[in-house]
Amino acid sequence: MSEYAIGVDLGGTNLRASAIDSSGKMLERFAESSRFAGGREGLLTEMVAAIAGLREKLGAGSLAGIGVSVPGFILLKEGVIRNSNNLPFIENFPIRDEIERRLGSRVILENDANAAALGEKWMGAGQEVDDLVLLTLGTGVGGGIIANGRIIRGYLGMAGELGHVVVVPKGNPCGCGSQGCVEKHASATAATAMARLMQLGENLSSKEVFDLANRDDDVGMKARAIWTATGESIGAVLATLVNTFNFSLYLLGGGVLAAWDRFAPAMIRTVEERSATYRLSKETTRIEQAKLGGDAGLYGAAYLPMLEK
Amino acid sequence: MSEYAIGVDLGGTNLRASAIDSSGKMLERFAESSRFAGGREGLLTEMVAAIAGLREKLGAGSLAGIGVSVPGFILLKEGVIRNSNNLPFIENFPIRDEIERRLGSRVILENDANAAALGEKWMGAGQEVDDLVLLTLGTGVGGGIIANGRIIRGYLGMAGELGHVVVVPKGNPCGCGSQGCVEKHASATAATAMARLMQLGENLSSKEVFDLANRDDDVGMKARAIWTATGESIGAVLATLVNTFNFSLYLLGGGVLAAWDRFAPAMIRTVEERSATYRLSKETTRIEQAKLGGDAGLYGAAYLPMLEK
Repeated sequence: MSEYAIGVDLGGTNLRASAIDSSGKMLERFAESSRFAGGREGLLTEMVAAIAGLREKLGAGSLAGIGVSVPGFILLKEGVIRNSNNLPFIENFPIRDEIERRLGSRVILENDANAAALGEKWMGAGQEVDDLVLLTLGTGVGGGIIANGRIIRGYLGMAGELGHVVVVPKGNPCGCGSQGCVEKHASATAATAMARLMQLGENLSSKEVFDLANRDDDVGMKARAIWTATGESIGAVLATLVNTFNFSLYLLGGGVLAAWDRFAPAMIRTVEERSATYRLSKETTRIEQAKLGGDAGLYGAAYLPMLEK
Repeated sequence: MSEYAIGVDLGGTNLRASAIDSSGKMLERFAESSRFAGGREGLLTEMVAAIAGLREKLGAGSLAGIGVSVPGFILLKEGVIRNSNNLPFIENFPIRDEIERRLGSRVILENDANAAALGEKWMGAGQEVDDLVLLTLGTGVGGGIIANGRIIRGYLGMAGELGHVVVVPKGNPCGCGSQGCVEKHASATAATAMARLMQLGENLSSKEVFDLANRDDDVGMKARAIWTATGESIGAVLATLVNTFNFSLYLLGGGVLAAWDRFAPAMIRTVEERSATYRLSKETTRIEQAKLGGDAGLYGAAYLPMLEK
């Protein structure tokens, strides 16, 4: 059989793993929804079992490697997560070495948004290009940058932390320690918070706030205002990215995409207002929706060992 | 004799050219201070004469190539400057092809700050690294990004336009069409403007505003406030760059460096406040002064043809 790799995507609330062959075909899939009640040990046990199960099923002989996508600021050389808002119990722990030890196989760690960007480049919306930026707008905001077909990792592996770009000086305090990060103003969490502050309801999802925006009353107006503010914050980050990279493709992913039709106009308007590069390169600059949805990280994680071969 | 290249640096008010060998030794230098009264034709004639003069002196046989650094947003494939605040008469004109035609030699065009960043990487403060960002703080603010030893150019060649990153939403209107670009809040021009608005004097240079900051009176306080504001604006851009790249080196160049001691504290404080990546990587992140001064662009321009060989 053809060569395959195992990609693992460790989210804030669940663990997924899959075996993908070198043509991008998903051969097997393992998904475990979990609140990680078992803490670090439970998580490690689950992850290693998932990987070992796939390896057993498909054969160790044709396994190209294992890639693991994890949230947070990662020290790549050390294989350590320095800061992870969602999974504090795996911070400052040699997670890569521990998985390698238990599996007896080499593992490549990567930040989740970086992995998703690579996945989109390999099998998603970025197949035709070598350079792209992905912003993932979910519970938080992540960023991944692909240049010449490869992830820009930076000196320690912490490049692409675009969710923590400050868009509102002295804005909302963020778990990272800064104020006004785009993650606090243009994520699903931020939309929920704005909806609550505006008395639209408790714990509304992006889709629910999107639906409210269709109403022809004050509720609708408030919901539309939320998406306008969201679009402006995303646009502010995108404008800086366009000035910085002049890439031809910028992708948005994550749950907030459900509200694309409501936030995209303010986003594009803001990019246009704030980026001369965009105004001069509009015909060759696309700002579009990512295609792989929640699977982007799995594809990217599986592609990591293939890239390094 | 050893191989050499000719680097040309076209500034807003003068033209410089030099022959540099492959070890980085400057063999010959040509500098012409000029207000370019002759417009486009005068400029082209001067530039071609300078290059031809150096080529004749050092021999066409060992000439590796010609690199030209120009200000503005450049369409690299076309060899056309789309937007140049300082030299409007060369906009939308096939300047590269015209120089090539007159010289009978191939010419590589590059944005001035990109060339300066490459120069610093080759012979300046970035010799030890493969990745760096340079911000040039002069009349305007330019940016150049080197990744894996090469300039990040972007799809059309307009990457690195960091001077037009918006740091003050709805701030000062900029010639690029945006408002609040860092160039309008943290350049020599911006310092002069703030000094005038605060009644410190007309047309003060960065060095003069720096000197005023040493005074122990209201004049000194105003001048110090100007550098604090300048440092905050530079810091805001740097914070985003650190989050984006996690590079180990960020360089600042240009005339505003004369005031380094006054703006650097507010700059570093702002980077620290606004970038979690910086806080997590402080020991491996250097923000320093560039080393080559006004020659960075000449070195970078000359290095362009050597890199392509």
